[in-house]
Amino acid sequence: MDVYGSEMSIAGWRRLIDEAYSGELGEPILNVDEARGSHFDAIFVGGGSAGRFGAAVLRSLGGRPLVVERWPFLGGSCPHQACVPHHLFSEAARELDQAQALQGRLWYPKFDPTAASVLELVELFRSQRSGPHAHMNWQSAQQLDIESVVNAEAAVRDARTVCAAGRTFTTDALVLATGARTAMPGIEGETLPGVFDYASFIEDLDYEPRKIVVIGGSKVAVEYASFYRATGTPTTVVSRAEVLTSGGPALMDDDLRGFVVEQMHSRDLELLEHSVVTRILGEERVEGVEVQTPAGRRVIDADFVLLGTGERPNTASFAAALPLTYDERGFVVVDSRMRTNIDGVYAAGDLIGPPLEMFKSRRSGTTAARNIMGIAAEFHYDDIPDFLHTTYEVTWAGLTERQARERYDRVVTIQVPPLGMAPGDTPLPMAEGSMLYGFTFPERTGYQKCVIDADSRRIVGIHHAGYGAKDAFQYLHHLISRPEGLTIDQLGDMNELYISSDYFIGYARLRANQADLTSM
Amino acid sequence: MDVYGSEMSIAGWRRLIDEAYSGELGEPILNVDEARGSHFDAIFVGGGSAGRFGAAVLRSLGGRPLVVERWPFLGGSCPHQACVPHHLFSEAARELDQAQALQGRLWYPKFDPTAASVLELVELFRSQRSGPHAHMNWQSAQQLDIESVVNAEAAVRDARTVCAAGRTFTTDALVLATGARTAMPGIEGETLPGVFDYASFIEDLDYEPRKIVVIGGSKVAVEYASFYRATGTPTTVVSRAEVLTSGGPALMDDDLRGFVVEQMHSRDLELLEHSVVTRILGEERVEGVEVQTPAGRRVIDADFVLLGTGERPNTASFAAALPLTYDERGFVVVDSRMRTNIDGVYAAGDLIGPPLEMFKSRRSGTTAARNIMGIAAEFHYDDIPDFLHTTYEVTWAGLTERQARERYDRVVTIQVPPLGMAPGDTPLPMAEGSMLYGFTFPERTGYQKCVIDADSRRIVGIHHAGYGAKDAFQYLHHLISRPEGLTIDQLGDMNELYISSDYFIGYARLRANQADLTSM
Repeated sequence: MDVYGSEMSIAGWRRLIDEAYSGELGEPILNVDEARGSHFDAIFVGGGSAGRFGAAVLRSLGGRPLVVERWPFLGGSCPHQACVPHHLFSEAARELDQAQALQGRLWYPKFDPTAASVLELVELFRSQRSGPHAHMNWQSAQQLDIESVVNAEAAVRDARTVCAAGRTFTTDALVLATGARTAMPGIEGETLPGVFDYASFIEDLDYEPRKIVVIGGSKVAVEYASFYRATGTPTTVVSRAEVLTSGGPALMDDDLRGFVVEQMHSRDLELLEHSVVTRILGEERVEGVEVQTPAGRRVIDADFVLLGTGERPNTASFAAALPLTYDERGFVVVDSRMRTNIDGVYAAGDLIGPPLEMFKSRRSGTTAARNIMGIAAEFHYDDIPDFLHTTYEVTWAGLTERQARERYDRVVTIQVPPLGMAPGDTPLPMAEGSMLYGFTFPERTGYQKCVIDADSRRIVGIHHAGYGAKDAFQYLHHLISRPEGLTIDQLGDMNELYISSDYFIGYARLRANQADLTSM
Repeated sequence: MDVYGSEMSIAGWRRLIDEAYSGELGEPILNVDEARGSHFDAIFVGGGSAGRFGAAVLRSLGGRPLVVERWPFLGGSCPHQACVPHHLFSEAARELDQAQALQGRLWYPKFDPTAASVLELVELFRSQRSGPHAHMNWQSAQQLDIESVVNAEAAVRDARTVCAAGRTFTTDALVLATGARTAMPGIEGETLPGVFDYASFIEDLDYEPRKIVVIGGSKVAVEYASFYRATGTPTTVVSRAEVLTSGGPALMDDDLRGFVVEQMHSRDLELLEHSVVTRILGEERVEGVEVQTPAGRRVIDADFVLLGTGERPNTASFAAALPLTYDERGFVVVDSRMRTNIDGVYAAGDLIGPPLEMFKSRRSGTTAARNIMGIAAEFHYDDIPDFLHTTYEVTWAGLTERQARERYDRVVTIQVPPLGMAPGDTPLPMAEGSMLYGFTFPERTGYQKCVIDADSRRIVGIHHAGYGAKDAFQYLHHLISRPEGLTIDQLGDMNELYISSDYFIGYARLRANQADLTSM
């Protein structure tokens, strides 16, 4: 069907997406200005965050983009199966954590673990996810003037030709942005009903898990495990290495990781580290897993297994037509301008490999678009801020204390709780999100650390577990990674909005004027 | 008693503070290095945030400070009666708001308004507040090496002499930082039992309010009213002007204020604007108030009245000894170096007038300290970020859209929900803290606006109601108020931590490359 020029509302888009996703509407949805023909400045194959943001920037620069997407909406896996449901579940985990801890105090009733349902939250997400989808379709068409073909598979014919919806479109440049999917680990039993990955968990769950095993020690594994545990469901994480040590370019500080892991332990989330799942057990469906642990072989009962074991790229729509260079894991190789080995062909998003983070996806797409429009733009994603959720928001940027001590002669830190104290020795840090804990369970408020090179006086690393600081780390990361950096004196001279989730400005002010910086 | 050199722990300080505050320990607590005599580089009269931070900086710069404080702890009214309880109650308000909205859904049971008790939260705060107090005493003594006399009234004899704890201390410089208290409005009945201000509410409440009137339309009035209402207690705000229009140096954007007020209405918080309380009614205790409204005279039943009607400075400890210049409201007049009209006498904190914000208090104290130590430092507090709580965190900095349109020829905005849409037309914005609402009550997620001068491409104003953005506004305010400013292109080039509470980076990226900027 053709919707070009229809000025459809968000509500109208939502109805259309619901019809298409349910299969009621089988045909592609075209938002293409036929009057302008079928040649484009760039075709984005895949309308996730890389394709959509790339197309928006190309249009802003005066170009004509086309986005082709198999799902009936733009935005990709993030609002459909990844970041958005993950954020919903993490908020639920935080609220459930508080509902359990505070039960019987203040207005909190006795916590009923049977009332907290993983399935109900998944169903809530599934029933409402087309709302954000519709917003993105509306925004792309109405506000950003992006032409698109959605609810249609793309078939790349060559570097200048893409077929979709029975039509042939030509282009000066091609941006491949088809994303990634779970890499199956190759364990016996991995295809049994009851074994899920992040996508099938959202799409297919139809029962309430009673005993959960999560395979993997990555951020995603820990995030979902924390959510499951917060609902009251017994949960075990099985990880080859210590959890949260593989990481991306930015590693977690030892003390930050220590706090986070200790808080997971205190919620009875079982972590089996240096352990490998050797078999998933069950006849008709999952009944358990067999694990090789440092202490020997062990069988764990489970009616639900989540695979958090990495990703592989989606190349089916173009692999046969384009002789691209791939890395050893199968991801498409690009340079810092997002150019592949084929002239005029770019790649962006999860297709070019980890870190599978939104900022990378969006910026790689916009970097491709700018280069296509003649603006030499580069993107290096080796110095990034990072975050994860447990029942906390955990955010970090720059160097860990250990990395800083390897690099600089004199390193000082500012920490809350102070250096040498355990959580609970003081109710600080407290701010929005940790106030109730501060006055009831002070060991639960959070942890923060600022790492400073005492000679240059520059902030070189920032680390936070708590609530409400994630947003700030975007700007703090920008400030500390500028060539001129950010000194403790400049930080201490800013205006704070007390009580702020990160105590960095206030505590920097206490040390800012000190000639010979000391830790605190 | 003398505690100098005792290396007391936070727990030890807490016991001492509890004893002193209960009256069990009547004597002053001295943390003074007798070996160094009784002459100081600066004496800070008042150990609130201005005095404590000023003393810390003076010590960092190599000076010898003494802080004299009537309460048995440093930190002042903030952790005792103001910012900290306010943050606790605002977090409770946010949780209660969600508990009511989501009752009967997910794991939320039917909301029981009798279970949510204002009194219980006040008692929780009162029972635990010495925890943060103890942290500050410990930090001041052990980490910051600040000498102090607490649990002792100061008597200023002249610009160089202060008596406290039966001792006489001399100094080169004096910093007055004795804070402020509520200015009584002069209404008949204002001294009846059941009439409270922010301080007596914390100290004296001993019953559960059933029907509340808040007098005033300031941030504090609205914050406490929102909390009371969130507990399920019928609450009326009586304000001379429209609420939240008096403000400080930074005004609220009309649309931001519109969202916030509409959300208060939707929670059945009654706002009587352009109205004046003419009498507080009652014999033995408060029974109601008489209000002159635009629609005529009205009597409102109430068993609890909160005065949110402004502040006056505490000058008793020095007024007779020092011929200071005061402004028309009685606040001490200082220049941008915090110097009073008397040589060597400085003033800081709430004593120098509104805005009564922590960043002003702390920076005015540290500005005084730096000048005393020979560093020419100035502090102008006319361009500040600001915030308040309702059941939302509301934060703003820079210009409102209206102010920007008065100043610049071409102003564009980026808004979520988009320009022309009402809350609920889209579930966006959503991020930490608004995810559950996004999937259940999309009209409750929040509102955000970025104001841009299209010619310079600079961000000139940022406005947010939601959760989790307050921390970021500290750094965003710094970035947009630097002389070189922050362009939409620079903002769009930052690394985001998706989903972030403010959508500024992501949405800026969608418009960043546009030659002729348009609103969205």
